[in-house]
Amino acid sequence: MSMPDHPRVIIIGAGFAGLWAARRLAHTQLDVLVLDRNNYHTFFPLLYQVAAAEIEPEDIVYPVRSILRRHKNIRFLMNEVTGIDLAAKQVKTTDAVFPYDFLVLAIGSNSHFFGVKGAAEHAFPLKTLGQAIALRNQILLRFERALYVSDPVRRKQMLTFAIVGGGPTGVEFSGALSELIRGPLAKDYPALDPAEMQVTLFEAADRLLAAFPESLGRYAFKRLQKMGVEIRLRAQVSQVTPESVQFSDGTSLALETVIWTAGVQGRPVNAELPVLRNGQVKVLPTLQSPDHPEVYITGDLAYLEEAGFPEPMLGPVATQQGDSAARNILRQANGQAPRPFHYHNNGTMATIGRNAAIAHIWGHAFTGFPAWILWLGIHLYGLIGFRNRLLVLIDWAWDYLFYERAVRLIVSSPDSRTKESIS
Amino acid sequence: MSMPDHPRVIIIGAGFAGLWAARRLAHTQLDVLVLDRNNYHTFFPLLYQVAAAEIEPEDIVYPVRSILRRHKNIRFLMNEVTGIDLAAKQVKTTDAVFPYDFLVLAIGSNSHFFGVKGAAEHAFPLKTLGQAIALRNQILLRFERALYVSDPVRRKQMLTFAIVGGGPTGVEFSGALSELIRGPLAKDYPALDPAEMQVTLFEAADRLLAAFPESLGRYAFKRLQKMGVEIRLRAQVSQVTPESVQFSDGTSLALETVIWTAGVQGRPVNAELPVLRNGQVKVLPTLQSPDHPEVYITGDLAYLEEAGFPEPMLGPVATQQGDSAARNILRQANGQAPRPFHYHNNGTMATIGRNAAIAHIWGHAFTGFPAWILWLGIHLYGLIGFRNRLLVLIDWAWDYLFYERAVRLIVSSPDSRTKESIS
Repeated sequence: MSMPDHPRVIIIGAGFAGLWAARRLAHTQLDVLVLDRNNYHTFFPLLYQVAAAEIEPEDIVYPVRSILRRHKNIRFLMNEVTGIDLAAKQVKTTDAVFPYDFLVLAIGSNSHFFGVKGAAEHAFPLKTLGQAIALRNQILLRFERALYVSDPVRRKQMLTFAIVGGGPTGVEFSGALSELIRGPLAKDYPALDPAEMQVTLFEAADRLLAAFPESLGRYAFKRLQKMGVEIRLRAQVSQVTPESVQFSDGTSLALETVIWTAGVQGRPVNAELPVLRNGQVKVLPTLQSPDHPEVYITGDLAYLEEAGFPEPMLGPVATQQGDSAARNILRQANGQAPRPFHYHNNGTMATIGRNAAIAHIWGHAFTGFPAWILWLGIHLYGLIGFRNRLLVLIDWAWDYLFYERAVRLIVSSPDSRTKESIS
Repeated sequence: MSMPDHPRVIIIGAGFAGLWAARRLAHTQLDVLVLDRNNYHTFFPLLYQVAAAEIEPEDIVYPVRSILRRHKNIRFLMNEVTGIDLAAKQVKTTDAVFPYDFLVLAIGSNSHFFGVKGAAEHAFPLKTLGQAIALRNQILLRFERALYVSDPVRRKQMLTFAIVGGGPTGVEFSGALSELIRGPLAKDYPALDPAEMQVTLFEAADRLLAAFPESLGRYAFKRLQKMGVEIRLRAQVSQVTPESVQFSDGTSLALETVIWTAGVQGRPVNAELPVLRNGQVKVLPTLQSPDHPEVYITGDLAYLEEAGFPEPMLGPVATQQGDSAARNILRQANGQAPRPFHYHNNGTMATIGRNAAIAHIWGHAFTGFPAWILWLGIHLYGLIGFRNRLLVLIDWAWDYLFYERAVRLIVSSPDSRTKESIS
């Protein structure tokens, strides 16, 4: 492949993979264009805390332009990608068509509902900032509406929240939601009976946190129970309706809010790429598409096995793959062969509540306060920009000192610019 | 009027007037119900800073429940008031009907377009949090979209912003917008020519800040000009379209964003109350409705003259009236006659930009840095809750030290909970 002087690289997606790829390509001879439909990067691991009204949406996002503007060879455009023409090497957006010499696909993942009836329509996913805000609105509005309901059965239904999926996100969110409900909301709604409020975590397997050592799953189970979260293992969801969640053993639970954290799948790409059942795209060990050596697939979208196991769909995998793909592009541009990717697992962790977390680092299992401090430090460090770190720290310190949550704002649609009414 | 043991008071609106009325009635024998369609109180004087991406939406709001929950005799319900039956003494909402013995109407004001053609449809008002966020989205999106436009005339049109109304809000917002554009946005969009970006302030009268001493209007004029804001006095807007603003002298300006700060009017009340041309309701000096002695009208909705001049539609007037109305209700409940309201003017002020403000306090005119420090302190103090004060202070200090703005997030509608797309 003969290279132009300034090969054009297009990176689709400004998440972990895309942003880390762009950073690696800064100050090189390459002409880089980053595309994303949002003008901000989302620090995904803390999304559940926005949904639990623990921190503010602005605390976990950062404008892409501010991150990239120091780099003269990188441009950013906020745009919706409508398709990719791999043969013509062009990315199509709603506004323009952009040619490329190299492409990095880093579009991430969506919720995966495994074909469960009604789940896509009625369950709340937790994968984007908009979804986290919508979920927060839903939870807070259930409490507001419950004040008008005199039938206690109906009221309990409104104040019951089911989390489907006992992985890290499900564990973290059910802990945070239970703390929100038993703390600030119980205080804000003295007219409602706390006995009518319920958080239940459902997991299809026979244990929580299947990707972690068993001792950590047991710790999370006990800790969540102590916090008032009900847990049902071996619970296979068969259907979600606006008023219930149903299980394959014939049982069901009446409620209005089901939060879906049970699975993720690669986001759909409008391109001639072979897609696996879970939406991922199989890549070579170099992260290249087998049929298109100039196309790199990274992060949650990429399917790659290492030592017989697929790489997990996690933030650290995405950042490392973004970086590796960029390094390989630089090698290709210089006429060198790309190198295979290896994931360096620096540990995984999840937080359960105040002072309680689990961590699996360098083969060691940590629980409780030490794991929590570790979790806090690493996640704070991960937030881009010192200002965000400071604000999140204040929100957390506040929460910790005063058993109080952040603003608990029920936002209306910002589109309704002229809608005004009497009160 | 014979009084029940626990007279029921309904306060409609949790703005300055309503909240201050509620606070005065705390720990009394009265049974108080506060209604608002939002679950938060908005600190209105800083709304323009949200629209200019200077501070975050959450910084200027505070949940009503958290403010009122210490007071056992006060309940809050988030609800849309649909009408008031003054004869039956009932407030109707979408969910229920509430009887009252006393009513405090504190529903505030809307933008007033004075019948200017197209203004209600195409101009951006700045009266609610939702409107401030919508305006921020509009401004930031103009810059994103302009990157795709090759015609410089068309691009200049997209990057031209007209503020209609040279009162405090118009002066404050045009200063803040100019700082946003000439600071962070110029840095974020190096591909765009700053010469194509324009902020113009239009005022129908022959001076800015008509409610302030003339020297302060002159100072604001010079200061804004120095900051790059164009100012046109004696400019009477005759029509607003999606592509232009037109004036009664036949001139026009091609643009996509008109911000309307030219006037406010009382919010419509669905009740048998005589409404003036500007939407306000005339009240007795005691703030009572002339026909309904149990109905108090406060804040921007109330029309009351003192020494021949109407009370201005300002925050301090609203808080003082809310407090006075509540005191009068307590007097009535105790069989005493209500007392007339007197406004204690502790001064008015407006900020123009970094280090620049104007203030009119105890008959003295302040400008520049001293006025700015005064403005900052008083507004920070006015923010309910220490946590909010701390966060706003950090945002401001950041802005001041680094010439940087807050997150500049273009939020999508939180309703779109399942809308997901490729990038």
